Amino acid sequence: MTVSEVRVDPSAHQEVRQGAAAGLRHQPIGELVLETGVAIPEVVLGYESWGQLNADASNAVLVQHALTGSSHAVQADSAEPGWWDGLVGPGKAIDTDELFVVCINMVGGCYGSTGPSSLAPDGEPWGSRFPYLTLRDSVRAEARLADALGISQWRAVIGGSMGGARALEWAVTFPDRVGTAVVIAACAASSAEQIALAQAQVLAIRQDPDYRGGDYYSEAAPISGLGLARRIAHISYRSETELADRFGRTAQPGEHPVSAERSTEAWRQRYQVESYLDHKAAKLAQIFDANSYVTLTEALMSHDVGRGRGGLAEALAAAAGVRFVLAAVTTDRLYLPAQTLELAEAMPQSTEVHWIESDIGHDGFLTETAQIGALLEAEGL
Amino acid sequence: MTVSEVRVDPSAHQEVRQGAAAGLRHQPIGELVLETGVAIPEVVLGYESWGQLNADASNAVLVQHALTGSSHAVQADSAEPGWWDGLVGPGKAIDTDELFVVCINMVGGCYGSTGPSSLAPDGEPWGSRFPYLTLRDSVRAEARLADALGISQWRAVIGGSMGGARALEWAVTFPDRVGTAVVIAACAASSAEQIALAQAQVLAIRQDPDYRGGDYYSEAAPISGLGLARRIAHISYRSETELADRFGRTAQPGEHPVSAERSTEAWRQRYQVESYLDHKAAKLAQIFDANSYVTLTEALMSHDVGRGRGGLAEALAAAAGVRFVLAAVTTDRLYLPAQTLELAEAMPQSTEVHWIESDIGHDGFLTETAQIGALLEAEGL
Repeated sequence: MTVSEVRVDPSAHQEVRQGAAAGLRHQPIGELVLETGVAIPEVVLGYESWGQLNADASNAVLVQHALTGSSHAVQADSAEPGWWDGLVGPGKAIDTDELFVVCINMVGGCYGSTGPSSLAPDGEPWGSRFPYLTLRDSVRAEARLADALGISQWRAVIGGSMGGARALEWAVTFPDRVGTAVVIAACAASSAEQIALAQAQVLAIRQDPDYRGGDYYSEAAPISGLGLARRIAHISYRSETELADRFGRTAQPGEHPVSAERSTEAWRQRYQVESYLDHKAAKLAQIFDANSYVTLTEALMSHDVGRGRGGLAEALAAAAGVRFVLAAVTTDRLYLPAQTLELAEAMPQSTEVHWIESDIGHDGFLTETAQIGALLEAEGL
Repeated sequence: MTVSEVRVDPSAHQEVRQGAAAGLRHQPIGELVLETGVAIPEVVLGYESWGQLNADASNAVLVQHALTGSSHAVQADSAEPGWWDGLVGPGKAIDTDELFVVCINMVGGCYGSTGPSSLAPDGEPWGSRFPYLTLRDSVRAEARLADALGISQWRAVIGGSMGGARALEWAVTFPDRVGTAVVIAACAASSAEQIALAQAQVLAIRQDPDYRGGDYYSEAAPISGLGLARRIAHISYRSETELADRFGRTAQPGEHPVSAERSTEAWRQRYQVESYLDHKAAKLAQIFDANSYVTLTEALMSHDVGRGRGGLAEALAAAAGVRFVLAAVTTDRLYLPAQTLELAEAMPQSTEVHWIESDIGHDGFLTETAQIGALLEAEGL
C-alpha cells in the first residue's frame, strides 16, 4: 500500500485516539505557562494507569512514551496492544501487581492531552495557534498530574528515546520527586545531527500543501508530508544491517523497480524496503496528527538538560541524589551509545552504562523488552 | 537564507548550466536503447576535457561525477571552480600536462546531456515523459562518446560516490576499455538503506505540488521539494561528529529557536545547523533540475554490478584483467567502509582497500583531494 492510497477522514484522528485508549482518563491541570512565557489555558492531560497506588503512595512508576507513542504502554483489558507490553504488566519486570504504573500523553500530543488538534477556548481547534513548547514544559505539566494523583515522589521514571529524555528532565527538574530515573537510548542534549533530521521531518510536513500552516482540521489531513516525515525518522530508527538483512535489494513482490513499468501513480515500481517504509508511513499517517508531530519534534529539538542551568555538569549536580540507570542500544545510530557514555561521565554519582545488545538499532528500546526487564530486575526496581 | 526566500526563474536552470560550463562541448551519440528496452532518440552528451589526447590515444582518463555533480571537475580558465580542482589540473595528481582528462555529464542530468529538461523531438521538454534509466545505460552512452573521441581504452576511469559506482560499472561492462578503475566511497550495489534514503529524497520532490508530475518547466520549479531532498541527502554526506563539532546546538545568529518568536514564515526560529542545511538546499535548488535529481537518484538505486550477471563474483570475474584501486572514507556512513571491503573481497584479483582518513564523512571523497592524490601517485597513475 502506498501512502497516496490512504484516504484519511478528517475526523479519523479523534476516532482512532478514542478507540485506542479505552482506559484513557483525563486530568485538568489548569493554565500552563510555558518556558517561553506563553500560557496555554485549561490544559488537560490524558493518561492511563495500571495497578493500585498503595496507601503511602510509594509504589508509583511513571513510564514516558517516545515521539509518536501514546499513554497506551500496556494492553491490559483493552483491544489494542501496548507499546511496552513485554516490560509492564502483572508479573512483568515492571510488575503492575505491586506497582502503580502511570503513562501520560505528552502535552502537545494527540492521544488525549491538550494539543494542536484540541479545541481552543474559542471552540475551534488550536491548529497553527498552538504554541511552541519544550520537554521541560511537559515535565512541569506532568508534575501537576502527579500532584492530583497524590504522588509526591515517583519510585521510578522510566523511558526510552524521547521518553528517556523526559525521564532525565524529570530527575533534574524535580530531583526530590524521582527515586530512580531509567534513561534508555537517550542523551543529555539533542545533537546537531538529531536537530538536522528533525528539521527535515518538520519541513516534510510543513511543505505539504494540505498542511495549510497547521489549520487543516476541516480539510484533508497532510498525510503525504506526515508519511515522508515518518520514513525519514524510521530509517534513523533502524540500523543499516537490519535493513540489509531484512530487505536487501529485493523487489516488492509483483513489482519491477528496474523496468519501464510504472505504478498507478506513474511512479517507478518499488523495492521491498520502499514498500516497508510506505507501510510505516501510511500506518502513522492514519493515526497521528501532523501538528502534534511538529510540536513534539520541535520540543525534542529543544532538549538540552544543561540549557539555562549552567551547563550539563551543573544541571546534573542538582540530581546527585537521584539514582540513575542508563542504557544504550549497541547499534543505535540516532541516539549514539557515545552520547549515553558522555551523559554517564558528566554525572557526579558513579553511573554505569548498560548495553542493550541488538542488531535492530534505536528501536531496540521498544523491541528488547526482555533485556530491559532483566536490567530493571537486576537493579532491584 | 531559508529556501522559501529563494525565487527561481523557470528558465534559470538552463542559464546557470550554460554559465557554469564555458568549456562544455556536446557530442551527439544517436539513439540510446535503455536496459528497459525504451529508446531515447538523438541523445547528446555534454562533456568537458582538459589536456591533449596523445597520438596513440593512450593517455585518456575519465573522471566520473557524483549525483549532483557536473562535467565541470576542473576550473581551468573558466569562472567557476571545478569540483575536483585539488586533484585534476596541470601538475596535479591527475596531471593534465600529461593526461587527457574527460568528464561527461551523465545522461539524464541537467548540465549539458540529454535529460528531462531537454527538448524531446516534439519540441517540448521531456518532463514526465523522460524514461527511467540505470547507471549501466549511462556507461554504454559514455562508451559511444569515447568512440567518437577515438579512445578505445581509458588509462583510468575514476570516480567517487555515484561516480565510483559508474567507474565500477565501466570496468565490468567494458573490461577491455579500462586500464585502471579507481572506485572511491562506493559499493557493489546500492543497499536497502541507500534505497530507503533515496526514496525519501525522490518523494520529497514528487510530493511538492510545483513538481506537477515532472511537467513544471513553464511554471515555478519545485524548489521546496528539491531543497528537502538535498537536506536529507546532505545529512547522510556528513558524519555526526562533523555536524556536532561545527554546529552543536548553537542558534543561528539573531534567531532564538527556544522561544515563542517565529520567523517570517511563521515557523520556529533556527539552530545554526538548520540554517546551514537551508543554505545547502537553496544553493542546489537554484542550479539543479528536480527531474534530473529524480532520474539520477533512481538510476543510483538500480546500481547492482552483479544484477543479471550471475551475481557479484561472476560479474567481477569479467573484470579480472582490470586493475582496481579501491578507497573508502573512514567516517562514511552512507557508503560504509564495510561495503568497500566486501567489494574488495569479492574480486578475483588481490585488491587492497585504501583509507581516506577524514572526520567529515562521505563528502571526504570531494574534500580530501590531497590524500586521494597521494594514493593515485603511489599507485603510479
